[in-house]
Amino acid sequence: MIPTHIEHIGIAVKDLEASIKYYEDTLGMKCYAIEEVKDQKVKTAFFKVGQTKIELLESTDPSGPIGKFIEKKGEGMHHMAFAVNNIEEKLQTVKERGVRLINETPRKGAEGLQIAFLHPKSTNGVLTELCEKKEEQ
Amino acid sequence: MIPTHIEHIGIAVKDLEASIKYYEDTLGMKCYAIEEVKDQKVKTAFFKVGQTKIELLESTDPSGPIGKFIEKKGEGMHHMAFAVNNIEEKLQTVKERGVRLINETPRKGAEGLQIAFLHPKSTNGVLTELCEKKEEQ
Repeated sequence: MIPTHIEHIGIAVKDLEASIKYYEDTLGMKCYAIEEVKDQKVKTAFFKVGQTKIELLESTDPSGPIGKFIEKKGEGMHHMAFAVNNIEEKLQTVKERGVRLINETPRKGAEGLQIAFLHPKSTNGVLTELCEKKEEQ
Repeated sequence: MIPTHIEHIGIAVKDLEASIKYYEDTLGMKCYAIEEVKDQKVKTAFFKVGQTKIELLESTDPSGPIGKFIEKKGEGMHHMAFAVNNIEEKLQTVKERGVRLINETPRKGAEGLQIAFLHPKSTNGVLTELCEKKEEQ
C-alpha cells in the first residue's frame, strides 16, 4: 500500500499547557491549533515539523483512551499515523493481509481527515492510524 | 531551535524478522538496511516513508536499553528523532532551557549521523533524539 509520509505522531501528555510550553519555548515550534475531540475524551494541540504533525493529547476523562494509556504506560508516544491515498482500499488490503482493524470503515478525525486505526496486536505493538485528506465535496 | 523534520521513529520489536515482514508485505515499504549497533545491544532495520525513517530495534541482550524497554512497556514506539542543523548549538540551547541531557556532546549513531539524546523526564515522557547529518570531512 505504501504510505506517502508520516502524517502525525500522537503523544499522550498529562498537562497540555505545560507540554505546549515545552514544544514552543524549548523546541521552538509553533502550536497552530487546539481542538477538543469530545467523543475521544481528549484535548489536542498541533505542531508541524517538516511533513509531519505532532499531536499532543491530554485526557479530559480518566475512562477515555488517553487516560487509560497514561495510567498503564505513563506519558509518551501513543500512536503513529500514515498518510495514504484511497483509505478504503488500503484498509481492505491490510485486512486481507491479516491485520485486525479497530475501524472497519473510515471515520472523521481531527482536522477533518478520514481516519481508521489498526489494532496494535497486529502491528508489533504500535497503535497505527491510516489517514486521508479528502477533497471537499 | 526548530527541527527541520522528523528524522526517524525508533520502534522496539521482539522479532526483527517478523516485523520486517509486516512493514514490507503488509505496509508495502522496503527495508533498505540492517545494521547491528553492538554498544547499544541492538539489531536495527531501516525503512523510509516520506522524509522520515522507521528504525526497528531488536534487542540482542536483555540487559540493553531495548531489552529493558520491552520488559517494562512491551513492544512499541521507543524514541523520536528530530533532524537539526548545528547539533552542538541546539544541545546547548535546550540545556539552557532546562532540559536534562543524556548525551552532553554528540556521538556517532547509526548511518553515520551525529546524535544526542534528551532525557524523557524533561520531554513529557518521549525519549527524544537530535541528529545531524554532517558533511564528510
